[in-house]
Order: sequence, then C-alpha cells, then structure tokens
Amino acid sequence: MLISCVAYENGRKLADIPVEDISDYVKRPDCFVWVAQFEPSREELDKMAEEFDLHPLAVEDARSGHQRPKIEEYGDSLFAVLQPVEKIKDDDGDDELLVGEVDIFVGPNYVLSVRHRTHLGFTGVRARAEREPELLRNGSAFVLYALMDNVVDRYFPVVDDLETQLETAEEQMFSTASTRDRLQKLYDLKRKLMTLKHAVAPLMEAVGKLYGGRVPQLCKGTQEYFRDVYDHLSRINGAIESSREMLTTATQVNLALISLSENEVTKRLAAWGALITVPTLIAGIYGMNFKNMPELDFAFGYPLAIAFMVGVDAVLFWRFRVAKWI
Amino acid sequence: MLISCVAYENGRKLADIPVEDISDYVKRPDCFVWVAQFEPSREELDKMAEEFDLHPLAVEDARSGHQRPKIEEYGDSLFAVLQPVEKIKDDDGDDELLVGEVDIFVGPNYVLSVRHRTHLGFTGVRARAEREPELLRNGSAFVLYALMDNVVDRYFPVVDDLETQLETAEEQMFSTASTRDRLQKLYDLKRKLMTLKHAVAPLMEAVGKLYGGRVPQLCKGTQEYFRDVYDHLSRINGAIESSREMLTTATQVNLALISLSENEVTKRLAAWGALITVPTLIAGIYGMNFKNMPELDFAFGYPLAIAFMVGVDAVLFWRFRVAKWI
Amino acid sequence: MLISCVAYENGRKLADIPVEDISDYVKRPDCFVWVAQFEPSREELDKMAEEFDLHPLAVEDARSGHQRPKIEEYGDSLFAVLQPVEKIKDDDGDDELLVGEVDIFVGPNYVLSVRHRTHLGFTGVRARAEREPELLRNGSAFVLYALMDNVVDRYFPVVDDLETQLETAEEQMFSTASTRDRLQKLYDLKRKLMTLKHAVAPLMEAVGKLYGGRVPQLCKGTQEYFRDVYDHLSRINGAIESSREMLTTATQVNLALISLSENEVTKRLAAWGALITVPTLIAGIYGMNFKNMPELDFAFGYPLAIAFMVGVDAVLFWRFRVAKWI
Amino acid sequence: MLISCVAYENGRKLADIPVEDISDYVKRPDCFVWVAQFEPSREELDKMAEEFDLHPLAVEDARSGHQRPKIEEYGDSLFAVLQPVEKIKDDDGDDELLVGEVDIFVGPNYVLSVRHRTHLGFTGVRARAEREPELLRNGSAFVLYALMDNVVDRYFPVVDDLETQLETAEEQMFSTASTRDRLQKLYDLKRKLMTLKHAVAPLMEAVGKLYGGRVPQLCKGTQEYFRDVYDHLSRINGAIESSREMLTTATQVNLALISLSENEVTKRLAAWGALITVPTLIAGIYGMNFKNMPELDFAFGYPLAIAFMVGVDAVLFWRFRVAKWI
Amino acid sequence: MLISCVAYENGRKLADIPVEDISDYVKRPDCFVWVAQFEPSREELDKMAEEFDLHPLAVEDARSGHQRPKIEEYGDSLFAVLQPVEKIKDDDGDDELLVGEVDIFVGPNYVLSVRHRTHLGFTGVRARAEREPELLRNGSAFVLYALMDNVVDRYFPVVDDLETQLETAEEQMFSTASTRDRLQKLYDLKRKLMTLKHAVAPLMEAVGKLYGGRVPQLCKGTQEYFRDVYDHLSRINGAIESSREMLTTATQVNLALISLSENEVTKRLAAWGALITVPTLIAGIYGMNFKNMPELDFAFGYPLAIAFMVGVDAVLFWRFRVAKWI
Repeated sequence: MLISCVAYENGRKLADIPVEDISDYVKRPDCFVWVAQFEPSREELDKMAEEFDLHPLAVEDARSGHQRPKIEEYGDSLFAVLQPVEKIKDDDGDDELLVGEVDIFVGPNYVLSVRHRTHLGFTGVRARAEREPELLRNGSAFVLYALMDNVVDRYFPVVDDLETQLETAEEQMFSTASTRDRLQKLYDLKRKLMTLKHAVAPLMEAVGKLYGGRVPQLCKGTQEYFRDVYDHLSRINGAIESSREMLTTATQVNLALISLSENEVTKRLAAWGALITVPTLIAGIYGMNFKNMPELDFAFGYPLAIAFMVGVDAVLFWRFRVAKWI
Repeated sequence: MLISCVAYENGRKLADIPVEDISDYVKRPDCFVWVAQFEPSREELDKMAEEFDLHPLAVEDARSGHQRPKIEEYGDSLFAVLQPVEKIKDDDGDDELLVGEVDIFVGPNYVLSVRHRTHLGFTGVRARAEREPELLRNGSAFVLYALMDNVVDRYFPVVDDLETQLETAEEQMFSTASTRDRLQKLYDLKRKLMTLKHAVAPLMEAVGKLYGGRVPQLCKGTQEYFRDVYDHLSRINGAIESSREMLTTATQVNLALISLSENEVTKRLAAWGALITVPTLIAGIYGMNFKNMPELDFAFGYPLAIAFMVGVDAVLFWRFRVAKWI
Repeated sequence: MLISCVAYENGRKLADIPVEDISDYVKRPDCFVWVAQFEPSREELDKMAEEFDLHPLAVEDARSGHQRPKIEEYGDSLFAVLQPVEKIKDDDGDDELLVGEVDIFVGPNYVLSVRHRTHLGFTGVRARAEREPELLRNGSAFVLYALMDNVVDRYFPVVDDLETQLETAEEQMFSTASTRDRLQKLYDLKRKLMTLKHAVAPLMEAVGKLYGGRVPQLCKGTQEYFRDVYDHLSRINGAIESSREMLTTATQVNLALISLSENEVTKRLAAWGALITVPTLIAGIYGMNFKNMPELDFAFGYPLAIAFMVGVDAVLFWRFRVAKWI
Repeated sequence: MLISCVAYENGRKLADIPVEDISDYVKRPDCFVWVAQFEPSREELDKMAEEFDLHPLAVEDARSGHQRPKIEEYGDSLFAVLQPVEKIKDDDGDDELLVGEVDIFVGPNYVLSVRHRTHLGFTGVRARAEREPELLRNGSAFVLYALMDNVVDRYFPVVDDLETQLETAEEQMFSTASTRDRLQKLYDLKRKLMTLKHAVAPLMEAVGKLYGGRVPQLCKGTQEYFRDVYDHLSRINGAIESSREMLTTATQVNLALISLSENEVTKRLAAWGALITVPTLIAGIYGMNFKNMPELDFAFGYPLAIAFMVGVDAVLFWRFRVAKWI
Repeated sequence: MLISCVAYENGRKLADIPVEDISDYVKRPDCFVWVAQFEPSREELDKMAEEFDLHPLAVEDARSGHQRPKIEEYGDSLFAVLQPVEKIKDDDGDDELLVGEVDIFVGPNYVLSVRHRTHLGFTGVRARAEREPELLRNGSAFVLYALMDNVVDRYFPVVDDLETQLETAEEQMFSTASTRDRLQKLYDLKRKLMTLKHAVAPLMEAVGKLYGGRVPQLCKGTQEYFRDVYDHLSRINGAIESSREMLTTATQVNLALISLSENEVTKRLAAWGALITVPTLIAGIYGMNFKNMPELDFAFGYPLAIAFMVGVDAVLFWRFRVAKWI
C-alpha cells in the first residue's frame, strides 16, 4: 500500500507526485524523492525496484520481511533493515512485544521505506523534517537518519518499562514469599529483553559503520547524526545487558530464598509437631497398665496430668518462639 | 557415485559430458564443468583430483568426510566444507538431527560437489541455476553460492522446529508439575542446538571472508550474494544463541520450580499429618488410666470425644485451607 | 545557573568576566575561558552554545542530561559526558548511589562544564589549577583532564566502600546462619556495582582514545595525563569486575550453605523426634491389655518402665551427640 | 638419551651419522639433519645447543620440560613446544590423561626433537616421511609439520573417548537414580577436558600464525600443511568447547534431578507414613476408657476394627497409587 | 630507605656510589646506575626524581604505592609497576596472600626500583646479574628483565600451592560429607586466585607490548627475554583460569552432593522412623479395650506380641538394608 510519494528540492517539499513521475524527479540535481509503503504488494514493490533500480537481493529481503536489523551497501546506495518494537496486549490481555520491520532503501536521490507488521507510521518524521529545511537539505541520508532516530527513540519507553518491571520484581522478591508467578514473571522479562536485544544489537553494530573510519559516500556529511543514533543504541544496549545480568542474579537469589523458606517451614512444622507429640507421650505413659501407679489414684491426677501437658507445651512454645521457629 | 557431470558456457548448459572429456571443456574459456558425486569411491575421487588438479590435502579431507565447516583457498581455487542438517527419526522414533557433509571444490572453470551421509541432493539447485542463465553467467562462484544458499536455507526449518519445541517447553514449565521428561527434553534441545551451532558458526566465520575486505579472486564478482548467505547464517546463529540462553534460564527456573514444589508438598503433608496426630493425642488422653476422669463416665462421653476430634480437625482443615496449605 | 565564568591567559587567571564578554576573550591567542554551570535553563545553555559555537547535537545531549559517559569529537572541539557517583542516604536511611552527570564542552580556547543532579562542585579543581599555572598553561585540555581526574578520584571511596561491604558479607557468610537479609545485601551490592560499572566502563573506553594512537588535536600535549586517568579507571574497573565475580560465587556458596543448614536442621529434628517417639512406643507396649504381662504386677514396674524410657533416651542422646546431630 | 641422528639431502636419507659430524652436514646446501632425543641429560642437550647454535632461553625451556604449548621465533629458527596427551591407567586402575612434552627446534637445516614424559615415539613419522621424499624435499619445516600432525592426530582418540564417556553419562542421567559416582564422573570428565584444552588451545593459537599473513620465513613453502594442522586443532577445540558446555548443563540438570528425586522420596515416605498413622489413630480411639462405648461390647468388635483399619489403608493405598506417590 | 646505589659499565660493576654522584655517572656513555629503594620517604624519592629527571605522574604513582601492574612509556624511559605476591600467615595462623608492589623506573642509563609492602628483596637478582656481565652488558633493559623475571618466578610456588589446595579439596569432595569448612575453603581459594590474577593479568598484557610489533626503543635488544617473561606469565594465567573454572564446577557439584546427602539422610531417617512407628501401631491395637480380643487371654499373648513387633522390624530392617536406606 502506498502511503505517500513526495519530491523535495534543496530541503523543501516540491509536491506530492504520482508514482509514474518518480523517474523524472530522480534525474534532477538537488532533488530527491521520498516514498513510503506499508506491506506493499509484489507489483507495488517491483514498480519501485524498477523506478529506483534497486538490487534484486535487497528487494527480495524487503519482500519476505523477516530480516535481522542490518545496513548493507549496494554500490552507492544503502539498504537498511530496522525493527521497531512496540508494547501490545496479547489475546490474554498480557503485555507482549510486537516486533515490526522497516526496510529502507536509500540512494543519492531517493528514499523508499517499506513498513511491515507495525502500526506506527512515520508521518511525524516527515512533518518534522519538512519543518527543518536547513537539515533536510542534507538530502536522503538525513531522511535515513530521521527514520532511524524515530525507530530508536521508540525503544526507550520499552526498555524503561522492562526496567520498571524488573525493579518491581526485585522489591517483591524480598518482601513476600516466592511464588510460581514471580518466577514466571522473571522468565517472561528475560524473554522480552532477548527480543529487544535482537532488534538493538545488530543495528548498533551496523550503525557503528556509518561514522568514524571508512564511511559509505552517502553518509559522509551526516556522520555526527549517525554517531548520535549509535550513542542512543549503545545506551539502550547497556540497559539491556545490565537488566539481563540482574535477572540472572535475581533467579539465583530467588532459588536461595525458596530454599531458605523451605528451611523455615521445616522448623515451624517441627515445632508444632513437638507440641503435639510430647503430650501424646505423656498420655501414653498414663495409659500404661501397671498395677502400681500412684498418680492414677490421686483425686486430681487427671487434671494435674492435663496441666502437666499444657505446662510442658507452654515451655516448649516459649522456647520455640525465642528461637524464632514459630 | 557420480550423480551428474555437465558443462556450461556463458551460463547455458552445453551438454552432459563423460568424465573423460572434462579436461577438454575445462580448457575452453567462458566454460565451466559442474560435477556432483555422492560418497565417491577412492578411485572416483582420485580421477577428479587428477582432472581438476585438486590439492592433495583438500582431497584427503573430502575423502575422510569428517571435517568442520570451512572455506580454504588453495591458489586460485577454493575448497568449501558445508554441513547440511536434517531432522530424522532415530530407531526409537525420536527426532534426531542428522549432520551430513558436502565438500565443494571450486576453481575458475569447475565445481565439484561431494556429498556424504545426507539424502538431500542438489538437483533443485541445478535446475534453478539453469533457469537463470544471466546469473549462472557469473560462473563457478555463483554455483558455489547457489549450493551454499541451498544448504543454509535448509537450516531454517530445523532452527524453527527447535524454537517451537523450546516455546512448548516454556509453556508447560509453569502450567504442570516438573517432571523428569521435561528436564530430559530441555537437555535434548540443548544438545541439538549445539549440533546445529557446530554446523553454522564456523561456516558463518568462513563466509564472512568472501565479501568486504580482501576477497578470493574467484568471488570478486559475487560478493553481494555471499553477503546474503552470511546474513542468513547470522540470523540463524542469533536464533541459536538466543535459544541457548533461554534454555540456560529455563533450566535454572525449573530447578527453582522443583524446590518450590517441594515446599508446597512439605506443607500439604504436614497439614494432613496434623489432621491425624491431633485426634491421636485426644484419644491418648482418654486412654489414660486415671481413676478419676469424670468424662469417662458420661453417657455421651464417647460420641462427644469423637465429635471433639472431628471438630478440632474441621477447624484445622479450615485454617490450612485458608493458608493454602491443602 | 551560572557558577562562574573566568578568563585565563598563559595559565594565569585574568579576571571573572561577564557572560557577554566571552566572545572577546575567546578571540585572543593564549587565552581561554572556563565557564561552569549547574542545571542551566534553556536560555543559559543556548547563550553558551552561541558564544562558543557548540554543535546542536551536543547541546541537545547536555540539555536532556541523561547520557551515558562518552567523549565525542565535533571538528576540533570535544564533548565529554562524565557521571560522578556519590553515596547518599535514601528516604529509608539506606545507603544509595546517586549518579549525577557532568557535560563538558572543550574547544581550543574554552571549557564549559554543565553539572546535573550532583551536589559536588568543582571549586576545588579550579583552585588547584590556579595554584599550578605551569600546568594550566597546557590550556583547555588540561582543564578537561583536571575535571575528569576529579570525577574519577571520587569513584575510589565508592568502590572501596562496596569492597568493604563485600568483605563484611563474606565474613558473616560462614559465621552465622543464612538469612534473608544477607541475600538482600548481596543483591543490593550487585546492583550498586552495576550502577558504578555503567559510569566507569564507557568512560574508560572513551578515555582510552585520548592517548596512544590517533588522538584529537586538542589532547596532543596532555596525553600522559589522560593515560593516568585511564589507568585509574582501569584500576576501578578491575575492582568492580573482581567484586562482581566474587558476588556470583558468594551467591552460589550461600545457596549451598542454606542447603547444608537444611540438612543439619533435618538431622537435629529427627534426633529430637526419636527422643519422643521411642518412649511413646515403650509406653504403648505397657498400655497393651494382655492378661498375662508380669511386669505390670511388679511393685516397681512403673518406676522401672519410666527409668527404662529415660535410659533409652539417654543412650540415644549420647549417640546423637557423638554423631553431632544434636 | 639419543634416539636417532640422521642426515637428509633433497628429501632422501643420506645416513645415520654420529653426533660429532652434525656440524659438517649442516653446512651443506639442500641438506638437513634430524635428531631425536628422549629426556636428554644436561650434557646431551648442551652438545646439541652447541652444534645447532640454539638460543639459550629455548634450551632452558627444553631442559626444564614444563612449558605450555607455543611456537617461538628466534631469528630464522623456530622453537615449538607440543604436549602429546595419552590415556593411561593410574595406580587405582582408573583412566588418567598423561600429558607429555615434545620440544622441537627447527632451523633451515636441522630439526631437533626432545621428548619428555611420553612413551609415544616418532619412528612412524620418520618412516612415513622417508617413504615420501617428494614431500620431505620441503625440508625441515615439513618435518615440523609431520611431527605436529602426528601429535595432533593422537588427540582425536582422546577427545572421542571423552565424548563417548559424556554420552554414556548423559544416557545414565535420565535412566537411573543420581549417585555420587555420576557426579564424580562428570567432575572427572571436566578435569580431563581442561587438561586436553590446555594442550590444544595455545597450540592452535600458535599454529594460526604459521599460515596466512606474516609467516616465519621457514614456513613459507608449507603454509597449507600448517593450515591443515590448524584445522584439525580447531575441530578438536570445538569438540572440547562443546563438551564443556554440555557438562555444565549436565551438572545443572543433575542437580534438578536430585531435587526432583527428593520430592518423590518425600511423597513416598509420607504415603507410607499415612498408612501407619491412620490405623494408629483408630487403635487409639478404641483404646479410650469411656464407660459407654458400644462397639467394645460387640462380639465381632475387634475383628471389625481390624477390618476397618485394613479397609481405610486399602483406600489410602489405592489413592496414593493413583496419584503415583507409591 | 636506600638499599643500594651502584654504577655499572659495560656489564661490570664500577662501584657503590653516593647518591650525589649519580648525575656524573649517568652522563658517561656505556654506563648505567642501578638504585634500589624500600618504602622511600618523600624526600628520598624527590631526590631520585631530580637526579634521573623522572616524570611527575610516574613519581606520584610510585609515591602512593597502590597501582595496578602496568608498563608505561614516558619519552624514552619506561615506568613499570609489578606486584610480587607472597604467602604469609595472618593473625589467625591462616595462609594469606600478601600483595606487595615494586615500581621500576628505567631509562637508557639508569634503573630505579622502589619496593613497597614486600619483604622479598632483589639482592639475589643483583648478584646473579653481576655474575653474568655478558648479559648485563645489554644495559638497563636487561636489569628490568631480571627484576621482572624474579617477580614472575615467585608466582609459580604460589599458583602451585593453590592448585594443590584445589586438588585436595577435589579429593575430599567425594570422599567425606560436605561441610561448611569445605565451602569456606573453596571460597577462600577463589579469593586468592582473584588476588593472584590481579597481579598477573595486567602485567601479562603490558609485557606483551615489549616484544613483537612496535617496541619501546629501550627494549629493542632484549625482546626475546621479555617474550620469555610473557610466556611464563601466560602459563601462570592459564593455570589460574583453569583453577577458576574447576572451582566454579566444584561449587556446583558440591551443591549437588549436599542435595544428594539430604536425600540420603531423609531416607535413613524415614527407615528408622518406620522401625519405631510400626510396633507403636501394633501396641496400639493390643491396647484397644474390646471385650472380645482372644489374643489378650493367651498365656503367651504378651511375648508373642513383642516377638511379632521384633519380627516385623527385622523384616523391615532387612528390606531397608537391601534398598541401601540404612
């Protein structure tokens, strides 16, 4: 589905143009065309491949729409794959991460973005870019930066949310008993962190090649912008790594807490058990059939025996309480 | 066993040729010979070594058929070892991974593929290549790419299958009690992941040297294709790494779940134990032989005692239920 | 908030100057201006950006104030982000680590430091620098070093404090029983180490590029100073890594200690249980209603039975004591 | 102890020569001397150092005989340390790994091998080399390769044996109860893997420098042979790494299996306990001394009570069986 | 404290010289001065800094005496920090590792060694060096090597001792029950390994830059000696890494052994419990008050009942023994 197709000259929007005119505008100097598609049909994508002379391998990748994040050079053009990540509700009402895909073809005078599986569009990016013509004058590489920056900025709330969940889990860990739910939550968090990492880490590696040493011709003038994106990505990556490590520790500590709690339960049960078995022993003794057991004939033998049982239990209870077993 | 022996010129099939004529075709410019063998005898392989002037060390490797994946340069020719992985049923009917081996000798004007231990052939690759003469015109390096791409594409269903199994294991983990079977499945998955990793990781490393910086002369014109293969391999590798890490976490969480379940069992047993020992104590008390125990003489002493036991148990039961011990 | 704004010439302080005069002094050779701000308003920062011609991306970073430590080159100027870490008391009176941020813009003839979220100022740095004019003559790069050195030196007490806490936890580990508090402390230490690591590790990596091979023009003359900072950072980093590894081991050993303690408790309880159930069995035997039980008719049958019970328990007690179960 | 001392010319054996004549042969072009020693005395080694002009540091290393695997350049000669690993029986009849040492000095026209602590000699290597004069013509570097290849080939049965042991341990793990022996075996396997790794990994690293980029002059013509050795080493190394990781997982899974088995034992014991305590309670009830307990006067009261006990136990047994507790 | 101050010329000792004359000797060609200090006062160190024209940052480092091992270039001189490690007894009589520090300043014609916190001096090094003038002729770099070699050689007994302790712990692990002491020993070993690693690893990294590629001018002629030191360090480092990994495994296996032992204790206790509760049930049955219990009237009812109890226990005991529960 075609979302928009616009020509720009010297950083200013010229006009929305029909797809057929693309080739005309592409030939003009200082002019570039920015096309946005959403889950295009085979024909729509082929048309673009023809207009912009895209490499068949890159088009094949964009068509299948299941790539890992990467940035590849094809001659003087670039092919970038980004994975925006959004938080959605799954069918059970649980939070889930939806990993979309944005394929971006960038040449000296065109930008083509192809969105898959994500509902978040780039109209904001386009609007912002058009409000800053002095930056947009940097050409198609700046548009690549702006799209990338937008995708990367959307990682922040996701990683913040995961960090908050981790902190909640940490607080609960020591305050309440260990439950199946807690372990499930930790496992779930781990899975989401891995999902996010798969979107972030390969992209970071790829963006790291757009500034500094040998840089694609296209990005020569906008290196500082790509370094900024890299910097954001490495901040997110650092947060992910940190959370992963804390999660591993949390899982281990949880296991220790469960064992500790087993210890405490064992002691408590043993204490209560003693409070039952000791009087049982006493009762057993006075249930013996010896002819000559003077206590049995006492007028208050029975209440005294009961009192003895209660007394012994009181002493035991007090000692267990002191030892914090009960 | 010779599967086929075909000469190509400018990307088009010339003819099936007898093995003896290979040396003639190899001398022609723009012409290359593509030979496929399956578990060749010593003589068959020696014959090829002679026709194509293969390096003895490479031939030795292909003969033994137990190499790790690699790509080696011998002068201007390449020797590649790939390990196709298939899912098969073992004797017990369990899924098992079969690791085959494909050794490929590539020179400027020949390709020789030697298959070991795998039933999956490359007739599809040959057919597809012959349908696209404009690509096949790239020569023997393109055939290497096509064979490699085919082997790598076959990894995807295997890794997808392992990921599905992991997801199933994850779901079961929190829903039902931990059993020996579950642990065995996790261990089994881990072993299969390691098997797959051994096929994928060294190949990825080797393919990474066929594009970008210093590249063998042979692959100069087809770098973008090898980058595509590399990209697929690193996607698979990422999935393997991710599954490995989740498996480690799953094993740890499983241990915690087992400990948790021990905790719960202990509590439940203790609760039922109390429901038996408390009335035993009461019975013991009324079994004492004191002369003067007024209750013993009551007309309804016995049913009252029984009622007392039942009542105490009812209260205990209710409290254990509230505390979720039963 | 502007803290100070001073001009220096040949390593000596010229005067406190008003913000408006900055551009005059910046033009003079051998002269540089050193400005310090604390959580500046948007206008204050914009004013500086204008006076010193700062890059918009760096200004944007300094404004938001949530960066990871880094050092970036913009043309012939540098933009450094440092994270000072202080130990503070949180609302519950627990020790907590406060991570501040210091953004430093350095050009050939200016230094601008922007502090966020930290109460520790740099008046000491300025005073020391002014006392050593022969060093300050090295210009703005030396000021960058002095600020960096000050931030890094403040890491030492923090890491020392964490190491001391770890040592205390280690000593307690083997001397007293494992408690929830201990595990919480270990977890807490781990979290603080991760916080510190996030301040130290990226900075170390960045400072490592200010000496040795290709170095920014600005730092050419002060490489040895930056190597010294790098050296301090790698000492801190080594201490952090070491503590992290010991913490992991400590967590594992703690788990083993908890299991061991479970073992001991089980044995102790079983021993006490035997001391109760064995006499109960004896009492049960003498509670049997056989017609012909000679002991029952003995004059001292009852005291002998009691003595027998006590005797058996004494023997058991002694054996349990020998076996260290009680 | 001198094993042999032979001169070769153009790949063909000239003669067994006395040690004193070495210096004569060494001077001839196209000629090299191959000396083999086994645990030489100080004088024997000093004699060789003099004849071949060996570097004192290398001779010192060969004398002490406790080096890690390495390959060092001294001018235009090489000093290689290899560690052959053999499986032997220790005094208790258990399999143990014996790590020997082979120090090889290689110059343009000599090879000196010094064996320590290993009973496996190199007569096979010499015989094979002499059967292939066209290869031996490559000179002393080829002899180095042949010795190295021989040592490396001997790693294969060792690593295969360890892998088989691991597989056996894996199979037993899920089929029978966890025992001390199993854990000891896993630990033992781990130790052997580490021993093997210490022989393999540093050698692999060292051999990796004998082909490809900057290569010692001596090895220029035999690079492909050293790459082959490297390849074998990396196959062994991969197998070791893989086994190590599986061992770690196996240890964790074993722990989980032990906990699981604890769970099952607890349940089984509790079930049997219930089968004893419930009839005890019933017996206790009919042991109460109430005047008015009609059942006591029934003619068949006693057998009915016993039947009741048996009946209750039968029901319990059946329920425990269904729940798989017994 | 000044230990010694000696001038050398062409590898031979000239004379012990007073500190004031240092500057005279330093100017002579082929002459160098070797000064040794132990915990020098501020003035003593300042004096040396002046005589040898040392860099203030290096002097500052040597003064504080708490550096990590490193080797830094200052112009054509080197500053090396080594950490000798000795085994000492602490106040409780336990073995402890004492980490000292040796700071070495080396210029073309001087060597200054500053010792901190270690009682092991270098008189042996000096004596050996003076006995080998042909080596000492290599100048100050050779002295640096000799000092370094001496410090590194002292690591061997320490690492050997730790390995022996690990082996002892391994043997005990499977032979006797797991105790708190064992875990403490493992933890203690780990801590010592980390201490040693902190002395060895950074030094290894630093020494690795003194041979091979770009090397400080000073070390040009003695590269092979530094490679030898590097080699020793990497042998020690390998041993440390190996021990660390075995320790981690040992900790895990210990945990499994503790769980296993818990399992065994539980079974044993349950068996003994059964031997008590089963006769208690029998006694309970014959304690019931049914009118009509024929056994009660048997002449030998009582001894038969006792015999029955003993018989049942004998059967149980035999079965438990067979099942290895007792």
